Amino acid sequence: MSKYDPLPSWQEGKVKKRIIEFVEQVTDESSEYFVEPADRIATFDNDGTLMVEKPVMAQVAYFKRKLLNAGVLNNVSTVQRIFHWLKEILFDSGSLLKLTLYFFRQGITTDEYRASVALWIAKARHPRFNKKYTELTYQPMMEVLAYFEKHSFANYIVSGSTANFIRPWSKTSYNIAPNRVIGSSLRTCLSLRNGEMAVKLEPIPFSIENRSRKVLSIERRLAQRPIAAFGNSYGDVDMLRWSRTTKQSLCVLIHHTDDVREYKYSPDSFFCLGKNTLQYANELNWQVVDMKKDWKQIF
Amino acid sequence: MSKYDPLPSWQEGKVKKRIIEFVEQVTDESSEYFVEPADRIATFDNDGTLMVEKPVMAQVAYFKRKLLNAGVLNNVSTVQRIFHWLKEILFDSGSLLKLTLYFFRQGITTDEYRASVALWIAKARHPRFNKKYTELTYQPMMEVLAYFEKHSFANYIVSGSTANFIRPWSKTSYNIAPNRVIGSSLRTCLSLRNGEMAVKLEPIPFSIENRSRKVLSIERRLAQRPIAAFGNSYGDVDMLRWSRTTKQSLCVLIHHTDDVREYKYSPDSFFCLGKNTLQYANELNWQVVDMKKDWKQIF
Repeated sequence: MSKYDPLPSWQEGKVKKRIIEFVEQVTDESSEYFVEPADRIATFDNDGTLMVEKPVMAQVAYFKRKLLNAGVLNNVSTVQRIFHWLKEILFDSGSLLKLTLYFFRQGITTDEYRASVALWIAKARHPRFNKKYTELTYQPMMEVLAYFEKHSFANYIVSGSTANFIRPWSKTSYNIAPNRVIGSSLRTCLSLRNGEMAVKLEPIPFSIENRSRKVLSIERRLAQRPIAAFGNSYGDVDMLRWSRTTKQSLCVLIHHTDDVREYKYSPDSFFCLGKNTLQYANELNWQVVDMKKDWKQIF
Repeated sequence: MSKYDPLPSWQEGKVKKRIIEFVEQVTDESSEYFVEPADRIATFDNDGTLMVEKPVMAQVAYFKRKLLNAGVLNNVSTVQRIFHWLKEILFDSGSLLKLTLYFFRQGITTDEYRASVALWIAKARHPRFNKKYTELTYQPMMEVLAYFEKHSFANYIVSGSTANFIRPWSKTSYNIAPNRVIGSSLRTCLSLRNGEMAVKLEPIPFSIENRSRKVLSIERRLAQRPIAAFGNSYGDVDMLRWSRTTKQSLCVLIHHTDDVREYKYSPDSFFCLGKNTLQYANELNWQVVDMKKDWKQIF
Protein backbone atom coordinates (compact mmCIF):
# COMPACT_ATOMS: atom_id res chain seq x y z
CA MET A 1 0.00 0.00 0.00
CA SER A 2 1.20 3.49 -0.83
CA LYS A 3 1.87 6.12 1.82
CA TYR A 4 -1.56 7.56 1.13
CA ASP A 5 -4.12 5.56 3.09
CA PRO A 6 -7.66 6.49 2.07
CA LEU A 7 -9.19 4.55 4.96
CA PRO A 8 -7.01 5.20 8.03
CA SER A 9 -9.71 4.20 10.57
CA TRP A 10 -10.10 0.76 9.00
CA GLN A 11 -8.06 -2.17 10.27
CA GLU A 12 -6.00 -3.82 7.59
CA GLY A 13 -8.04 -6.81 6.51
CA LYS A 14 -10.31 -8.37 3.95
CA VAL A 15 -12.97 -5.62 3.84
CA LYS A 16 -10.59 -2.66 3.64
CA LYS A 17 -8.57 -4.44 0.98
CA ARG A 18 -11.66 -5.16 -1.10
CA ILE A 19 -12.97 -1.56 -0.92
CA ILE A 20 -9.64 -0.23 -2.17
CA GLU A 21 -9.36 -2.91 -4.85
CA PHE A 22 -12.89 -2.09 -6.03
CA VAL A 23 -12.18 1.63 -6.37
CA GLU A 24 -8.93 0.94 -8.17
CA GLN A 25 -10.64 -1.41 -10.63
CA VAL A 26 -13.57 0.81 -11.53
CA THR A 27 -11.37 3.87 -12.00
CA ASP A 28 -8.67 2.15 -14.05
CA GLU A 29 -9.43 2.65 -17.74
CA SER A 30 -7.43 -0.41 -18.66
CA SER A 31 -9.39 -2.66 -16.30
CA GLU A 32 -12.24 -4.82 -17.56
CA TYR A 33 -14.15 -3.48 -14.55
CA PHE A 34 -13.73 0.18 -15.51
CA VAL A 35 -16.88 2.23 -14.97
CA GLU A 36 -17.47 5.68 -16.50
CA PRO A 37 -17.64 8.42 -13.85
CA ALA A 38 -21.32 9.11 -14.67
CA ASP A 39 -22.14 5.52 -13.72
CA ARG A 40 -20.23 5.47 -10.43
CA ILE A 41 -23.32 5.49 -8.24
CA ALA A 42 -22.98 4.51 -4.58
CA THR A 43 -25.95 4.19 -2.26
CA PHE A 44 -25.85 4.27 1.53
CA ASP A 45 -28.47 3.48 4.09
CA ASN A 46 -28.35 6.13 6.84
CA ASP A 47 -29.39 4.85 10.28
CA GLY A 48 -26.95 2.21 11.51
CA THR A 49 -24.83 2.50 8.36
CA LEU A 50 -23.59 6.08 8.46
CA MET A 51 -24.66 7.01 11.99
CA VAL A 52 -25.71 5.51 15.29
CA GLU A 53 -29.33 4.28 15.39
CA LYS A 54 -29.56 2.98 18.96
CA PRO A 55 -31.33 3.27 21.35
CA VAL A 56 -33.61 4.90 18.78
CA MET A 57 -33.04 6.47 15.38
CA ALA A 58 -32.43 10.22 15.35
CA GLN A 59 -35.78 10.78 13.66
CA VAL A 60 -37.56 8.95 16.47
CA ALA A 61 -35.67 10.99 19.09
CA TYR A 62 -36.80 14.13 17.27
CA PHE A 63 -40.42 12.99 17.38
CA LYS A 64 -40.08 12.14 21.06
CA ARG A 65 -38.95 15.67 21.82
CA LYS A 66 -41.76 17.13 19.73
CA LEU A 67 -44.33 14.99 21.54
CA LEU A 68 -42.97 16.07 24.91
CA ASN A 69 -42.96 19.72 23.89
CA ALA A 70 -46.50 19.49 22.64
CA GLY A 71 -47.63 18.09 25.97
CA VAL A 72 -48.97 15.05 24.17
CA LEU A 73 -46.89 12.85 26.39
CA ASN A 74 -47.30 14.35 29.81
CA ASN A 75 -45.78 11.78 32.02
CA VAL A 76 -42.62 9.79 31.87
CA SER A 77 -44.22 6.36 32.07
CA THR A 78 -46.24 7.05 28.93
CA VAL A 79 -43.05 8.13 27.22
CA GLN A 80 -41.34 4.97 28.37
CA ARG A 81 -44.19 2.82 27.14
CA ILE A 82 -44.27 4.47 23.75
CA PHE A 83 -40.55 4.21 23.31
CA HIS A 84 -40.43 0.65 24.42
CA TRP A 85 -42.94 0.04 21.65
CA LEU A 86 -40.87 2.10 19.23
CA LYS A 87 -37.78 0.07 20.04
CA GLU A 88 -39.72 -3.06 19.29
CA ILE A 89 -40.70 -1.87 15.86
CA LEU A 90 -37.44 -0.15 15.07
CA PHE A 91 -37.03 -1.91 11.78
CA ASP A 92 -40.58 -1.30 10.70
CA SER A 93 -40.53 1.97 8.80
CA GLY A 94 -44.30 1.78 8.49
CA SER A 95 -44.64 2.47 12.20
CA LEU A 96 -42.21 5.34 11.90
CA LEU A 97 -44.49 6.72 9.23
CA LYS A 98 -47.51 6.39 11.54
CA LEU A 99 -45.72 8.53 14.07
CA THR A 100 -44.84 10.97 11.31
CA LEU A 101 -48.49 11.18 10.34
CA TYR A 102 -49.39 12.12 13.88
CA PHE A 103 -47.16 15.18 13.60
CA PHE A 104 -48.26 16.39 10.29
CA ARG A 105 -51.95 16.16 10.91
CA GLN A 106 -52.11 19.92 11.32
CA GLY A 107 -50.22 20.64 8.15
CA ILE A 108 -46.84 22.31 8.02
CA THR A 109 -44.81 23.16 4.97
CA THR A 110 -41.74 21.20 3.92
CA ASP A 111 -39.65 24.33 4.59
CA GLU A 112 -41.01 24.51 8.14
CA TYR A 113 -40.36 20.83 8.76
CA ARG A 114 -36.75 21.07 7.58
CA ALA A 115 -36.22 24.23 9.64
CA SER A 116 -37.59 22.48 12.73
CA VAL A 117 -35.24 19.52 12.19
CA ALA A 118 -32.28 21.86 11.71
CA LEU A 119 -33.01 23.57 15.05
CA TRP A 120 -33.39 20.26 16.87
CA ILE A 121 -30.30 18.57 15.50
CA ALA A 122 -28.12 21.58 16.33
CA LYS A 123 -28.81 21.00 20.03
CA ALA A 124 -30.13 17.51 20.76
CA ARG A 125 -27.77 15.11 22.47
CA HIS A 126 -27.58 11.34 22.37
CA PRO A 127 -28.63 9.84 25.73
CA ARG A 128 -25.62 7.54 26.11
CA PHE A 129 -22.79 9.37 24.40
CA ASN A 130 -23.93 12.89 25.33
CA LYS A 131 -22.91 14.14 21.90
CA LYS A 132 -24.86 15.69 19.08
CA TYR A 133 -26.27 13.16 16.62
CA THR A 134 -24.19 14.67 13.84
CA GLU A 135 -21.10 13.87 15.92
CA LEU A 136 -22.16 10.23 16.02
CA THR A 137 -21.55 9.46 12.38
CA TYR A 138 -19.11 6.60 11.81
CA GLN A 139 -15.62 7.87 11.05
CA PRO A 140 -14.72 4.84 8.87
CA MET A 141 -17.80 5.48 6.73
CA MET A 142 -16.97 9.19 6.42
CA GLU A 143 -13.66 8.02 4.97
CA VAL A 144 -15.47 5.79 2.47
CA LEU A 145 -17.71 8.70 1.38
CA ALA A 146 -14.70 10.98 0.91
CA TYR A 147 -12.68 8.28 -0.87
CA PHE A 148 -15.56 7.59 -3.28
CA GLU A 149 -16.14 11.26 -3.92
CA LYS A 150 -12.48 11.80 -4.67
CA HIS A 151 -12.88 9.16 -7.38
CA SER A 152 -15.90 10.82 -9.00
CA PHE A 153 -18.56 8.65 -7.41
CA ALA A 154 -21.98 10.16 -6.77
CA ASN A 155 -22.93 9.22 -3.21
CA TYR A 156 -26.64 8.88 -2.42
CA ILE A 157 -28.41 8.29 0.88
CA VAL A 158 -31.37 5.90 0.68
CA SER A 159 -33.09 5.92 4.05
CA GLY A 160 -36.23 4.70 5.76
CA SER A 161 -36.21 7.97 7.70
CA THR A 162 -37.88 10.84 5.86
CA ALA A 163 -35.66 12.52 3.29
CA ASN A 164 -36.55 15.89 4.78
CA PHE A 165 -35.25 14.79 8.16
CA ILE A 166 -31.77 14.12 6.75
CA ARG A 167 -31.53 16.93 4.19
CA PRO A 168 -30.96 19.81 6.62
CA TRP A 169 -27.63 18.32 7.74
CA SER A 170 -26.59 15.93 4.92
CA LYS A 171 -24.29 18.46 3.26
CA THR A 172 -22.36 19.42 6.38
CA SER A 173 -22.22 15.91 7.84
CA TYR A 174 -21.68 13.79 4.73
CA ASN A 175 -20.94 16.28 1.96
CA ILE A 176 -24.04 14.86 0.27
CA ALA A 177 -26.31 17.49 -1.27
CA PRO A 178 -30.00 17.49 -0.18
CA ASN A 179 -31.02 16.46 -3.69
CA ARG A 180 -29.03 13.23 -3.28
CA VAL A 181 -31.03 12.17 -0.27
CA ILE A 182 -33.73 9.61 -1.07
CA GLY A 183 -36.00 8.75 1.83
CA SER A 184 -39.52 8.10 3.03
CA SER A 185 -41.97 10.88 2.41
CA LEU A 186 -45.50 12.07 2.87
CA ARG A 187 -47.83 13.29 0.21
CA THR A 188 -47.65 17.00 -0.43
CA CYS A 189 -49.95 19.62 -1.86
CA LEU A 190 -49.54 23.17 -3.11
CA SER A 191 -50.89 25.83 -0.82
CA LEU A 192 -50.90 29.57 -0.53
CA ARG A 193 -49.43 30.74 2.79
CA ASN A 194 -48.98 34.43 3.53
CA GLY A 195 -49.69 35.11 -0.13
CA GLU A 196 -46.84 32.79 -1.19
CA MET A 197 -46.90 29.40 -2.83
CA ALA A 198 -45.65 26.72 -0.47
CA VAL A 199 -45.54 22.96 -0.41
CA LYS A 200 -47.50 21.55 2.50
CA LEU A 201 -47.16 18.07 3.99
CA GLU A 202 -50.29 15.96 4.16
CA PRO A 203 -50.75 13.22 6.77
CA ILE A 204 -50.77 10.51 4.10
CA PRO A 205 -47.72 8.36 3.32
CA PHE A 206 -46.32 8.76 -0.16
CA SER A 207 -43.42 6.36 0.01
CA ILE A 208 -41.85 4.21 2.67
CA GLU A 209 -38.29 3.41 1.73
CA ASN A 210 -37.58 -0.07 2.91
CA ARG A 211 -36.63 -3.36 1.29
CA SER A 212 -37.73 -3.47 -2.37
CA ARG A 213 -38.92 0.15 -2.20
CA LYS A 214 -35.30 1.25 -1.87
CA VAL A 215 -34.53 -0.40 -5.20
CA LEU A 216 -37.63 0.99 -6.91
CA SER A 217 -36.95 4.52 -5.70
CA ILE A 218 -33.34 4.48 -6.85
CA GLU A 219 -34.42 3.16 -10.24
CA ARG A 220 -37.23 5.69 -10.56
CA ARG A 221 -34.87 8.51 -9.66
CA LEU A 222 -31.68 7.57 -11.47
CA ALA A 223 -32.55 4.89 -14.03
CA GLN A 224 -29.20 3.42 -12.99
CA ARG A 225 -28.04 0.63 -10.74
CA PRO A 226 -25.62 1.49 -7.96
CA ILE A 227 -22.25 -0.19 -8.35
CA ALA A 228 -21.70 0.08 -4.60
CA ALA A 229 -24.25 -0.27 -1.80
CA PHE A 230 -23.86 -0.13 1.98
CA GLY A 231 -26.45 -1.18 4.53
CA ASN A 232 -26.82 -2.70 7.95
CA SER A 233 -30.18 -4.40 8.12
CA TYR A 234 -32.74 -6.60 6.47
CA GLY A 235 -34.31 -3.43 5.01
CA ASP A 236 -31.16 -3.00 2.90
CA VAL A 237 -30.94 -6.56 1.55
CA ASP A 238 -32.77 -5.89 -1.72
CA MET A 239 -30.67 -2.78 -2.42
CA LEU A 240 -27.46 -4.79 -1.96
CA ARG A 241 -28.76 -7.69 -4.04
CA TRP A 242 -29.70 -5.30 -6.84
CA SER A 243 -26.37 -3.52 -6.76
CA ARG A 244 -24.71 -6.89 -7.09
CA THR A 245 -26.31 -7.42 -10.51
CA THR A 246 -23.84 -4.91 -12.00
CA LYS A 247 -20.74 -6.43 -13.54
CA GLN A 248 -18.51 -4.97 -10.92
CA SER A 249 -20.03 -4.31 -7.57
CA LEU A 250 -19.24 -3.71 -3.95
CA CYS A 251 -21.84 -4.79 -1.40
CA VAL A 252 -21.08 -4.03 2.21
CA LEU A 253 -23.05 -5.00 5.29
CA ILE A 254 -22.19 -3.18 8.52
CA HIS A 255 -22.58 -5.68 11.35
CA HIS A 256 -23.01 -4.15 14.79
CA THR A 257 -20.81 -6.31 16.98
CA ASP A 258 -19.33 -3.85 19.45
CA ASP A 259 -21.38 -3.31 22.60
CA VAL A 260 -18.48 -1.58 24.33
CA ARG A 261 -17.79 1.23 21.88
CA GLU A 262 -21.26 1.24 20.25
CA TYR A 263 -24.04 -1.40 20.25
CA LYS A 264 -24.36 -5.07 19.47
CA TYR A 265 -27.46 -6.23 17.61
CA SER A 266 -28.78 -8.37 14.79
CA PRO A 267 -29.36 -6.98 11.31
CA ASP A 268 -32.72 -8.75 11.17
CA SER A 269 -36.13 -7.52 12.18
CA PHE A 270 -38.73 -10.02 13.30
CA PHE A 271 -40.37 -9.47 9.92
CA CYS A 272 -37.63 -11.48 8.32
CA LEU A 273 -39.20 -14.82 7.54
CA GLY A 274 -37.07 -16.46 4.85
CA LYS A 275 -33.32 -16.16 4.55
CA ASN A 276 -31.88 -13.75 7.06
CA THR A 277 -29.51 -10.91 6.33
CA LEU A 278 -26.29 -12.69 7.26
CA GLN A 279 -27.33 -15.69 5.19
CA TYR A 280 -27.73 -13.44 2.16
CA ALA A 281 -24.38 -11.83 2.89
CA ASN A 282 -22.69 -15.18 3.08
CA GLU A 283 -24.35 -16.65 0.01
CA LEU A 284 -23.71 -13.60 -2.17
CA ASN A 285 -20.20 -12.89 -0.93
CA TRP A 286 -20.91 -9.48 0.48
CA GLN A 287 -18.30 -7.76 2.57
CA VAL A 288 -19.38 -7.99 6.19
CA VAL A 289 -17.91 -5.34 8.46
CA ASP A 290 -17.35 -6.65 11.97
CA MET A 291 -17.40 -3.28 13.70
CA LYS A 292 -15.47 -4.55 16.70
CA LYS A 293 -12.62 -5.90 14.59
CA ASP A 294 -12.68 -3.86 11.39
CA TRP A 295 -13.01 -0.35 12.74
CA LYS A 296 -10.14 1.17 14.75
CA GLN A 297 -12.35 4.09 15.63
CA ILE A 298 -16.15 4.28 15.61
CA PHE A 299 -16.98 8.00 15.77
CA MET B 1 -22.68 43.30 -25.65
CA SER B 2 -19.31 41.65 -25.84
CA LYS B 3 -18.13 39.79 -28.92
CA TYR B 4 -19.21 36.55 -27.29
CA ASP B 5 -22.92 36.08 -27.88
CA PRO B 6 -24.29 33.21 -25.79
CA LEU B 7 -27.63 33.22 -27.63
CA PRO B 8 -26.87 33.75 -31.34
CA SER B 9 -30.23 32.34 -32.55
CA TRP B 10 -32.17 34.84 -30.48
CA GLN B 11 -33.22 38.18 -31.97
CA GLU B 12 -31.97 41.14 -30.00
CA GLY B 13 -34.92 42.15 -27.83
CA LYS B 14 -36.50 42.17 -24.42
CA VAL B 15 -36.42 38.41 -23.77
CA LYS B 16 -32.82 37.82 -24.87
CA LYS B 17 -31.70 40.85 -22.88
CA ARG B 18 -33.46 39.63 -19.74
CA ILE B 19 -32.04 36.09 -19.96
CA ILE B 20 -28.50 37.47 -20.20
CA GLU B 21 -29.10 40.03 -17.45
CA PHE B 22 -30.48 37.25 -15.22
CA VAL B 23 -27.45 35.02 -15.69
CA GLU B 24 -25.08 37.94 -15.10
CA GLN B 25 -26.89 38.89 -11.88
CA VAL B 26 -27.04 35.44 -10.32
CA THR B 27 -23.39 34.71 -11.12
CA ASP B 28 -22.00 38.06 -9.94
CA GLU B 29 -20.84 37.72 -6.35
CA SER B 30 -21.22 41.44 -5.78
CA SER B 31 -24.85 41.45 -6.93
CA GLU B 32 -27.70 41.36 -4.43
CA TYR B 33 -29.16 38.67 -6.70
CA PHE B 34 -26.12 36.38 -6.51
CA VAL B 35 -27.04 32.71 -6.16
CA GLU B 36 -24.61 30.00 -5.04
CA PRO B 37 -23.86 27.48 -7.80
CA ALA B 38 -25.53 24.67 -5.81
CA ASP B 39 -28.79 26.64 -5.87
CA ARG B 40 -28.76 27.45 -9.58
CA ILE B 41 -31.58 25.09 -10.50
CA ALA B 42 -33.30 25.53 -13.85
CA THR B 43 -36.33 23.46 -14.88
CA PHE B 44 -37.58 22.94 -18.41
CA ASP B 45 -40.76 21.43 -19.74
CA ASN B 46 -39.92 19.15 -22.69
CA ASP B 47 -42.70 18.94 -25.31
CA GLY B 48 -43.28 22.32 -26.92
CA THR B 49 -40.55 23.94 -24.82
CA LEU B 50 -37.40 22.10 -25.88
CA MET B 51 -38.77 20.20 -28.89
CA VAL B 52 -41.66 20.17 -31.33
CA GLU B 53 -44.89 18.68 -29.94
CA LYS B 54 -47.18 18.98 -32.98
CA PRO B 55 -49.02 17.27 -34.57
CA VAL B 56 -48.54 14.91 -31.62
CA MET B 57 -45.89 14.62 -28.91
CA ALA B 58 -43.01 12.25 -29.63
CA GLN B 59 -44.24 9.88 -26.95
CA VAL B 60 -47.64 9.67 -28.63
CA ALA B 61 -45.99 9.03 -32.02
CA TYR B 62 -44.01 6.23 -30.37
CA PHE B 63 -47.20 4.67 -29.01
CA LYS B 64 -48.86 5.00 -32.41
CA ARG B 65 -46.06 3.03 -34.02
CA LYS B 66 -46.22 0.40 -31.29
CA LEU B 67 -49.99 0.05 -31.73
CA LEU B 68 -49.59 -0.34 -35.47
CA ASN B 69 -46.80 -2.89 -35.07
CA ALA B 70 -48.86 -4.86 -32.63
CA GLY B 71 -51.74 -5.00 -35.08
CA VAL B 72 -53.96 -3.39 -32.48
CA LEU B 73 -54.83 -0.69 -34.98
CA ASN B 74 -55.39 -2.55 -38.17
CA ASN B 75 -56.89 0.05 -40.37
CA VAL B 76 -56.05 3.61 -41.08
CA SER B 77 -59.42 5.06 -40.18
CA THR B 78 -59.15 3.64 -36.67
CA VAL B 79 -55.72 5.17 -36.41
CA GLN B 80 -57.07 8.49 -37.60
CA ARG B 81 -59.91 8.38 -35.11
CA ILE B 82 -57.67 7.56 -32.22
CA PHE B 83 -55.22 10.27 -33.12
CA HIS B 84 -57.88 12.83 -33.66
CA TRP B 85 -58.93 12.03 -30.13
CA LEU B 86 -55.33 12.17 -28.92
CA LYS B 87 -54.89 15.59 -30.49
CA GLU B 88 -57.94 16.79 -28.63
CA ILE B 89 -56.58 15.70 -25.30
CA LEU B 90 -53.02 16.64 -26.01
CA PHE B 91 -52.67 18.69 -22.86
CA ASP B 92 -54.25 16.07 -20.68
CA SER B 93 -51.40 13.94 -19.44
CA GLY B 94 -53.92 11.65 -17.78
CA SER B 95 -55.01 10.36 -21.17
CA LEU B 96 -51.42 9.90 -22.18
CA LEU B 97 -51.06 7.76 -19.13
CA LYS B 98 -54.09 5.69 -20.10
CA LEU B 99 -52.41 4.94 -23.37
CA THR B 100 -49.23 4.11 -21.51
CA LEU B 101 -51.17 1.70 -19.35
CA TYR B 102 -52.39 -0.11 -22.42
CA PHE B 103 -48.83 -0.85 -23.41
CA PHE B 104 -47.55 -2.00 -20.13
CA ARG B 105 -50.38 -4.37 -19.35
CA GLN B 106 -48.14 -7.30 -20.22
CA GLY B 107 -45.30 -6.13 -18.08
CA ILE B 108 -41.91 -5.14 -19.40
CA THR B 109 -38.93 -3.99 -17.44
CA THR B 110 -37.80 -0.37 -17.32
CA ASP B 111 -34.62 -1.41 -19.12
CA GLU B 112 -36.68 -2.95 -21.93
CA TYR B 113 -38.89 0.11 -22.21
CA ARG B 114 -35.91 2.48 -22.47
CA ALA B 115 -34.23 0.21 -25.01
CA SER B 116 -37.40 0.16 -27.11
CA VAL B 117 -37.60 3.97 -27.04
CA ALA B 118 -33.94 4.26 -27.99
CA LEU B 119 -34.51 2.05 -31.04
CA TRP B 120 -37.59 3.98 -32.13
CA ILE B 121 -36.14 7.46 -31.73
CA ALA B 122 -33.03 6.55 -33.71
CA LYS B 123 -35.21 6.00 -36.79
CA ALA B 124 -38.65 7.62 -36.49
CA ARG B 125 -39.27 10.70 -38.58
CA HIS B 126 -41.60 13.62 -38.02
CA PRO B 127 -44.50 13.57 -40.53
CA ARG B 128 -44.16 17.20 -41.62
CA PHE B 129 -40.45 17.95 -41.36
CA ASN B 130 -39.25 14.47 -42.28
CA LYS B 131 -36.50 14.70 -39.67
CA LYS B 132 -35.75 12.66 -36.59
CA TYR B 133 -37.45 13.95 -33.46
CA THR B 134 -34.09 14.60 -31.87
CA GLU B 135 -33.32 16.93 -34.78
CA LEU B 136 -36.45 18.91 -33.96
CA THR B 137 -35.24 20.40 -30.72
CA TYR B 138 -35.29 24.19 -30.65
CA GLN B 139 -31.90 25.67 -31.41
CA PRO B 140 -32.50 28.81 -29.29
CA MET B 141 -33.34 26.61 -26.29
CA MET B 142 -30.24 24.47 -26.86
CA GLU B 143 -28.29 27.71 -26.53
CA VAL B 144 -30.05 28.52 -23.25
CA LEU B 145 -29.23 25.05 -21.87
CA ALA B 146 -25.56 25.43 -22.84
CA TYR B 147 -25.37 29.00 -21.53
CA PHE B 148 -26.85 27.96 -18.18
CA GLU B 149 -24.58 24.96 -17.91
CA LYS B 150 -21.54 27.09 -18.61
CA HIS B 151 -22.57 29.16 -15.60
CA SER B 152 -22.89 26.17 -13.26
CA PHE B 153 -26.65 25.79 -13.45
CA ALA B 154 -28.15 22.33 -13.01
CA ASN B 155 -30.68 21.88 -15.82
CA TYR B 156 -33.63 19.57 -15.15
CA ILE B 157 -36.38 18.37 -17.47
CA VAL B 158 -39.84 18.21 -15.88
CA SER B 159 -42.17 16.58 -18.36
CA GLY B 160 -45.67 15.18 -18.65
CA SER B 161 -44.21 12.48 -20.89
CA THR B 162 -42.76 9.55 -19.01
CA ALA B 163 -39.26 10.12 -17.68
CA ASN B 164 -38.17 6.84 -19.21
CA PHE B 165 -39.26 8.02 -22.65
CA ILE B 166 -36.89 11.01 -22.50
CA ARG B 167 -33.97 9.45 -20.64
CA PRO B 168 -32.57 7.36 -23.50
CA TRP B 169 -31.75 10.50 -25.51
CA SER B 170 -31.61 13.35 -22.95
CA LYS B 171 -27.84 13.24 -22.61
CA THR B 172 -27.04 13.36 -26.33
CA SER B 173 -29.80 15.84 -27.21
CA TYR B 174 -29.70 18.20 -24.24
CA ASN B 175 -26.59 17.23 -22.32
CA ILE B 176 -28.96 16.48 -19.44
CA ALA B 177 -28.18 13.26 -17.56
CA PRO B 178 -30.99 10.68 -17.24
CA ASN B 179 -31.07 11.27 -13.50
CA ARG B 180 -32.03 14.91 -14.12
CA VAL B 181 -35.15 13.94 -16.02
CA ILE B 182 -38.32 14.17 -13.95
CA GLY B 183 -41.45 12.89 -15.67
CA SER B 184 -44.62 10.89 -15.42
CA SER B 185 -44.21 7.31 -14.35
CA LEU B 186 -45.92 4.05 -13.68
CA ARG B 187 -45.70 2.00 -10.54
CA THR B 188 -42.91 -0.53 -10.57
CA CYS B 189 -42.19 -3.79 -8.81
CA LEU B 190 -39.14 -5.96 -8.31
CA SER B 191 -39.09 -9.13 -10.32
CA LEU B 192 -36.75 -11.95 -11.13
CA ARG B 193 -36.21 -12.32 -14.88
CA ASN B 194 -33.77 -14.84 -16.26
CA GLY B 195 -32.49 -15.29 -12.75
CA GLU B 196 -31.71 -11.57 -12.44
CA MET B 197 -33.39 -8.88 -10.43
CA ALA B 198 -35.15 -6.39 -12.65
CA VAL B 199 -37.59 -3.56 -12.21
CA LYS B 200 -40.88 -4.21 -13.97
CA LEU B 201 -43.48 -1.63 -14.97
CA GLU B 202 -46.99 -2.17 -13.69
CA PRO B 203 -50.05 -0.82 -15.52
CA ILE B 204 -50.88 1.56 -12.67
CA PRO B 205 -49.99 5.26 -12.78
CA PHE B 206 -47.54 6.38 -10.11
CA SER B 207 -47.26 10.05 -10.97
CA ILE B 208 -48.61 12.30 -13.69
CA GLU B 209 -46.44 15.37 -13.99
CA ASN B 210 -48.69 18.24 -14.84
CA ARG B 211 -49.62 21.54 -13.22
CA SER B 212 -49.12 21.41 -9.44
CA ARG B 213 -47.59 17.94 -9.70
CA LYS B 214 -44.58 19.43 -11.45
CA VAL B 215 -43.96 21.63 -8.42
CA LEU B 216 -44.48 18.81 -5.94
CA SER B 217 -42.15 16.47 -7.80
CA ILE B 218 -39.37 19.04 -8.03
CA GLU B 219 -39.74 19.79 -4.33
CA ARG B 220 -39.81 16.12 -3.38
CA ARG B 221 -36.72 15.45 -5.46
CA LEU B 222 -34.58 18.51 -4.81
CA ALA B 223 -35.98 20.30 -1.76
CA GLN B 224 -35.11 23.42 -3.72
CA ARG B 225 -37.00 25.94 -5.81
CA PRO B 226 -35.83 26.51 -9.36
CA ILE B 227 -34.58 30.02 -9.98
CA ALA B 228 -35.39 29.64 -13.67
CA ALA B 229 -38.30 27.82 -15.28
CA PHE B 230 -39.32 27.43 -18.91
CA GLY B 231 -42.65 26.15 -20.18
CA ASN B 232 -45.13 26.56 -23.00
CA SER B 233 -48.54 25.56 -21.70
CA TYR B 234 -51.07 25.75 -18.93
CA GLY B 235 -49.51 22.59 -17.49
CA ASP B 236 -46.38 24.63 -16.73
CA VAL B 237 -48.08 27.60 -15.05
CA ASP B 238 -47.66 26.37 -11.47
CA MET B 239 -43.98 25.55 -12.04
CA LEU B 240 -43.34 29.07 -13.32
CA ARG B 241 -45.36 30.67 -10.53
CA TRP B 242 -43.41 28.67 -7.96
CA SER B 243 -40.06 29.54 -9.47
CA ARG B 244 -41.06 33.19 -9.29
CA THR B 245 -41.23 33.01 -5.49
CA THR B 246 -37.43 32.99 -5.35
CA LYS B 247 -35.80 36.36 -4.84
CA GLN B 248 -34.30 36.38 -8.27
CA SER B 249 -36.10 34.43 -10.91
CA LEU B 250 -36.48 33.98 -14.61
CA CYS B 251 -39.83 32.70 -15.86
CA VAL B 252 -40.12 32.13 -19.58
CA LEU B 253 -43.19 31.10 -21.57
CA ILE B 254 -42.59 29.86 -25.11
CA HIS B 255 -45.52 31.05 -27.22
CA HIS B 256 -46.03 29.15 -30.46
CA THR B 257 -46.81 31.89 -32.96
CA ASP B 258 -45.10 30.69 -36.12
CA ASP B 259 -47.24 28.51 -38.37
CA VAL B 260 -44.80 28.89 -41.25
CA ARG B 261 -41.62 27.60 -39.64
CA GLU B 262 -43.32 25.55 -36.90
CA TYR B 263 -46.90 25.66 -35.51
CA LYS B 264 -49.24 28.27 -34.15
CA TYR B 265 -51.37 27.35 -31.13
CA SER B 266 -52.63 28.49 -27.77
CA PRO B 267 -50.84 27.56 -24.54
CA ASP B 268 -54.17 26.71 -22.95
CA SER B 269 -56.01 23.42 -22.81
CA PHE B 270 -59.76 23.41 -22.54
CA PHE B 271 -59.29 22.39 -18.92
CA CYS B 272 -58.19 25.90 -18.13
CA LEU B 273 -61.16 27.47 -16.39
CA GLY B 274 -59.86 30.46 -14.47
CA LYS B 275 -57.05 32.74 -15.56
CA ASN B 276 -55.42 31.53 -18.74
CA THR B 277 -51.71 31.08 -19.34
CA LEU B 278 -51.08 34.39 -21.09
CA GLN B 279 -53.00 36.24 -18.38
CA TYR B 280 -50.68 34.72 -15.77
CA ALA B 281 -47.67 35.63 -17.89
CA ASN B 282 -48.84 39.19 -18.19
CA GLU B 283 -49.79 39.62 -14.56
CA LEU B 284 -46.58 38.10 -13.21
CA ASN B 285 -44.23 39.71 -15.73
CA TRP B 286 -42.97 36.49 -17.24
CA GLN B 287 -40.87 36.66 -20.37
CA VAL B 288 -43.06 35.59 -23.27
CA VAL B 289 -41.15 34.28 -26.29
CA ASP B 290 -42.92 35.13 -29.54
CA MET B 291 -41.36 32.36 -31.61
CA LYS B 292 -42.00 34.16 -34.89
CA LYS B 293 -40.24 37.33 -33.77
CA ASP B 294 -37.79 36.22 -31.08
CA TRP B 295 -36.18 33.22 -32.71
CA LYS B 296 -34.02 33.70 -35.81
CA GLN B 297 -33.87 29.97 -36.23
CA ILE B 298 -36.25 27.33 -34.90
CA PHE B 299 -34.41 24.01 -35.27
